[in-house]
Amino acid sequence: MTDDTLIFTDLSAATMAEGDVAYGLIEDAAIAVQDGAISWVGPQAHLPATYHALPRTSLNGRLVTPGLVDCHTHIVHGGNRATEFEMRLKGASYEEVARAGGGIVSTVSATRSASQADMVASALPRLDALLAEGVSVVEIKSGYGLDIETELRMLRAARALATERNVRVVTSFLGAHAVPAEYAGQAEAYIDTVCIPALRAAHAEGLVDAVDGFCEGIAFTPSQIARVFDVAQTLDLPVKLHTEQLSNLGGAKLAASYGALSADHIEYLDDAGVAAMAKAGTVAVVLPGAFYTLRETQVPPLDALRTHQVPIALATDCNPGSSPLTSLLLSMNMACTLFRMTPEEALAGVTRNAARALGLRDCGTIAPDTRADLAVWDVNHPAELSYRIGFNPLFSRIVKGVPCPR
Amino acid sequence: MTDDTLIFTDLSAATMAEGDVAYGLIEDAAIAVQDGAISWVGPQAHLPATYHALPRTSLNGRLVTPGLVDCHTHIVHGGNRATEFEMRLKGASYEEVARAGGGIVSTVSATRSASQADMVASALPRLDALLAEGVSVVEIKSGYGLDIETELRMLRAARALATERNVRVVTSFLGAHAVPAEYAGQAEAYIDTVCIPALRAAHAEGLVDAVDGFCEGIAFTPSQIARVFDVAQTLDLPVKLHTEQLSNLGGAKLAASYGALSADHIEYLDDAGVAAMAKAGTVAVVLPGAFYTLRETQVPPLDALRTHQVPIALATDCNPGSSPLTSLLLSMNMACTLFRMTPEEALAGVTRNAARALGLRDCGTIAPDTRADLAVWDVNHPAELSYRIGFNPLFSRIVKGVPCPR
Ligand SMILES: [Zn+2]
Ligand SMILES: [Zn+2]
Repeated sequence: MTDDTLIFTDLSAATMAEGDVAYGLIEDAAIAVQDGAISWVGPQAHLPATYHALPRTSLNGRLVTPGLVDCHTHIVHGGNRATEFEMRLKGASYEEVARAGGGIVSTVSATRSASQADMVASALPRLDALLAEGVSVVEIKSGYGLDIETELRMLRAARALATERNVRVVTSFLGAHAVPAEYAGQAEAYIDTVCIPALRAAHAEGLVDAVDGFCEGIAFTPSQIARVFDVAQTLDLPVKLHTEQLSNLGGAKLAASYGALSADHIEYLDDAGVAAMAKAGTVAVVLPGAFYTLRETQVPPLDALRTHQVPIALATDCNPGSSPLTSLLLSMNMACTLFRMTPEEALAGVTRNAARALGLRDCGTIAPDTRADLAVWDVNHPAELSYRIGFNPLFSRIVKGVPCPR
Repeated sequence: MTDDTLIFTDLSAATMAEGDVAYGLIEDAAIAVQDGAISWVGPQAHLPATYHALPRTSLNGRLVTPGLVDCHTHIVHGGNRATEFEMRLKGASYEEVARAGGGIVSTVSATRSASQADMVASALPRLDALLAEGVSVVEIKSGYGLDIETELRMLRAARALATERNVRVVTSFLGAHAVPAEYAGQAEAYIDTVCIPALRAAHAEGLVDAVDGFCEGIAFTPSQIARVFDVAQTLDLPVKLHTEQLSNLGGAKLAASYGALSADHIEYLDDAGVAAMAKAGTVAVVLPGAFYTLRETQVPPLDALRTHQVPIALATDCNPGSSPLTSLLLSMNMACTLFRMTPEEALAGVTRNAARALGLRDCGTIAPDTRADLAVWDVNHPAELSYRIGFNPLFSRIVKGVPCPR
């Protein structure tokens, strides 16, 4: 016991530990925190004697969950696409939108013209919206620069965000997100001349925690993605992939062959892909915000994922085009309403399984030796977190054992 | 000019005045407020000389809209239905849910056992969520008591909420919401013995601003609703109706024949119903939160409503079963994404047309002689209010001319 030991009492803990108890729920629980890590969790009546004399903070019966983890976001980007959203709803065709400079091109152009300070300033309100809902870890991708300098600047902005707020940021290099206009029809040349050099430079600067790509007819082929992943492998960086979102090119299987952390979107994933992911321990990241915004009707193959015991995570996919969503709680409700996931699966998807999708072993459950990053909620039961729509019952975040009021 | 005159400057005003200009938008605008009402709005360069010497508050280029109006809510109710939400997603049948005490029965039972103070306390977080998004008027219905005392208590709680927060509350008596268990199979007797006496008592106590009902196979027939509306008419109270949500019983036509303020839900509304509403000046209130939660596929007949120039409002329908939604901004996004309404229609739906659905002529647009209830937003363009999902860009509410910071 050090002087820094804190005891939280009078709470229920949805520990999200795997096992027979739904949500790993412990009623009338206590949590002991030492040096920013959890040192003990269990029924308050069983609190070890060594903790008895230490100061206690009562949470007055509130629910405590692991701090939430948003494992797939594009919160660093320039501009917004409200004009394009409005044009489409007024009946404009895709061509008209494109002629007006819409689509990803407009985001690339706005991102290229943004300084690092601009990127941080425009991302902060989005980050704050996530934190206000109990998020303690946010993954942030590059991928709207599509030139070496801007890809690096996006990742620097992502790292800078972690110094602006009390949050952990995990970065993904997503140079293989789209082929920029100046390389139209020359995806291979883009991979060679921009994407791979940018990856090497970003890695040399310590900016890359994982390497991502977009494997799709409108983006890159499996063999192009493989060339980027080969470089990731030589750099000892884990990979992940946007794949099987609009069609099935076998991207999940490819990713699994590289031991990918996750395959994301996966509406069109087939059984072979599921089996490959199961074997590789690759997490399935479903993104209901994009499904909702694009009015997709093909639901990810949840039953097959369950049967093969592939861990299922979910995330906001916060991006200016297909998912301008900054609420992980709403992602949970959408996962239940649109994908028929259970509230327990939804909560596991933004805690235990989201941490796993980022390769993090020190968060995502409330367990000894994990970081004391917690979310405290004004609800009676964890199912309420998925049930309510557009309502934030967060009482406070606890980051490394220290409460941060809302 | 009195000493109380205030001038807001350096803003864009989405006045929502009808006319040729989208959103009634005035760039570089100013708004003058006198005694809590708007006395002038227009381009700042045209501000009349009489205002020149008065103190100004710069809004630094922010967008100002009318305060939002949520014209259809059930925010006063006991309990929540998270358990039932979870049971269904775990595969329980409707019978199993009913055997476990689920459905509206559980809300009626929780509401009956709630004191007025309980009702106010449990509704306040929901009300606060609405206000945090710039709402200045909230409609609140009874309808979960289904006995005389509880129906009155719900309406008293609704009135009490208006004293707890800086908000206008408009009440609707919804005794004809469902047949309670103790009157199963005896809807007529319920209407005679409970609903109509409760309406008379509530009206005598000044608790009723309008009379609502639910016309549907699972609720009341048109002729039963007509009996309640007849009483409303003798009491000089306007009517409105939940109708054509699951089937078409001709409720909208019936409501229009009473000059109803609004017909609400209306997924199954037919052309005759639309024409009758147009003739009567009845507003169509669409409720995308319920559509989303129930995974309905029949979209309200928006083109017919547009053709017949029926004003279209939208609301949260905040209720514990089919729409546990407390975000009017999210309703706007859902109206665009799910119903293909335009962002301008969505904003008109929560301002001008929502005010009309409540029979209010002094709010819903920014115009001289309306109340200075405004919402100030950190956005560049009003389309952003519908485009973003789960993000709140409110800077402040202005209520009767007085800024209330978030
Ligand atoms: Zn993505
Ligand atoms: Zn309703």
